[in-house]
Amino acid sequence: MGPLPRTLELFYDVLSPYSWLCFEVLCRYQKIWNVKLQLQPTLIAGIMKDSGNKPPALLPRKGQYLKSELSLLKHHFQVPIKFPKDFFSVIIDKGEENRMHVGNQVESRAARNQRARKEGLSRLREATGSEQGSLSAMRFLTAVNMETPEMLEKVSRELWMRVWSRDEDISEPQSILAAAEKAGLSAEQAQGLLGMISTAEVKKRLMEVTEVACKYGAFGLPVTVAHVDGQTHMLFGSDRMELLAYLLGEKWMGPVPPALNARL
Amino acid sequence: MGPLPRTLELFYDVLSPYSWLCFEVLCRYQKIWNVKLQLQPTLIAGIMKDSGNKPPALLPRKGQYLKSELSLLKHHFQVPIKFPKDFFSVIIDKGEENRMHVGNQVESRAARNQRARKEGLSRLREATGSEQGSLSAMRFLTAVNMETPEMLEKVSRELWMRVWSRDEDISEPQSILAAAEKAGLSAEQAQGLLGMISTAEVKKRLMEVTEVACKYGAFGLPVTVAHVDGQTHMLFGSDRMELLAYLLGEKWMGPVPPALNARL
Repeated sequence: MGPLPRTLELFYDVLSPYSWLCFEVLCRYQKIWNVKLQLQPTLIAGIMKDSGNKPPALLPRKGQYLKSELSLLKHHFQVPIKFPKDFFSVIIDKGEENRMHVGNQVESRAARNQRARKEGLSRLREATGSEQGSLSAMRFLTAVNMETPEMLEKVSRELWMRVWSRDEDISEPQSILAAAEKAGLSAEQAQGLLGMISTAEVKKRLMEVTEVACKYGAFGLPVTVAHVDGQTHMLFGSDRMELLAYLLGEKWMGPVPPALNARL
Repeated sequence: MGPLPRTLELFYDVLSPYSWLCFEVLCRYQKIWNVKLQLQPTLIAGIMKDSGNKPPALLPRKGQYLKSELSLLKHHFQVPIKFPKDFFSVIIDKGEENRMHVGNQVESRAARNQRARKEGLSRLREATGSEQGSLSAMRFLTAVNMETPEMLEKVSRELWMRVWSRDEDISEPQSILAAAEKAGLSAEQAQGLLGMISTAEVKKRLMEVTEVACKYGAFGLPVTVAHVDGQTHMLFGSDRMELLAYLLGEKWMGPVPPALNARL
């Protein structure tokens, strides 16, 4: 009997584009590194609330940076990310606009930033449906994980394709059903899973996974928890995959490993 | 005449441990990639103020993460980082302690986090000398850059060795002189440069560099600005060096390139 494969848990939310980058890299490497990958659908809003953190894009200059950086990372990672038009304009551009309207009034930069953050927050809530954002989508993925875990990777990817590539909704029932069917579930299966998202069991499970991420120390997503040689390492972000390879004693070959390149 | 080397500007502050990681990687790669590296001493407090950002360690859970992550990154990057004992206890542990003193009083998690952040901020100011933190050190490096730029790399590294490896002061004149002499400056040179830090010229220069970083969109440090093929890319953090290699069309060989390993 060979050694047991090392286990990696990926805590993610489809609202997070960096979660998508991390997800694709781990899906690509799981066989190359012989690791067991456990996908853990998590609610990013719950992580932010519990840790007291704020979404990075709410700081205008970080938001601008994320947009330009993601346009470089999409090529480097070969993941078809496109910044949603409204999401960004709601958070950043509107903030800029409001600042210009202040005109000649004297307002300190700190006060301006404070106000922009507050405005951004309330607009984020409106834009994502009363703070619900990815709640239905992540409950749906939780149901998929409970009922047909072998489909979780594909359904997750189709939800990211909607929100972070084609700028499509992921909160309405028909949006979620469309992603599920595109991933290969039958209309019947998809409807059945959608029916589960309002059950106490699914709600509880998503809350529990989110709490587990918090216990590991999460203050954002993605979070990768590596169980290696009896040790547990929590890594934050999509940019710690080289460090993960180092911890696993495996080779890092960039976000698109050559073995995969040959197959593309 | 061969092609002009590409230019990389590194904006850094010795208060930032991730700046140190980025600095060492760029110093290692500058010859391998044939890039011109311009070290730009910058004031992180100025960047935070201008962007409205907060030091990450002020969020307790982020602070805990940074500490555990840096203890992994030091091995992976082969940079002898050690978390300063007081710095961390002032920001994080004291916050935890205060929270415990609240005892049975009802206090929401959000309120608790808010209070811990505020307390952390005021303690940070005390700990780093009335918000001055690295002000004298960065003015000194600015003077080094103006007078003997060939010594800037070594003096910067000795200041990091003090604050981020041996847990020693970098705000007192004798601390700065000790770092300068350890880097190879004569006592006379070091004294001369120290005399310059209160001049309008040095103060203005540090302010100007900090403003340039802000114009590039900085909201923290390190910031690497790559001038490649007539394009300018701003990259934040020590974890974008692989993306930098991709932009330069060069090979990324990890934080310790093999050519360097052979020489160590």
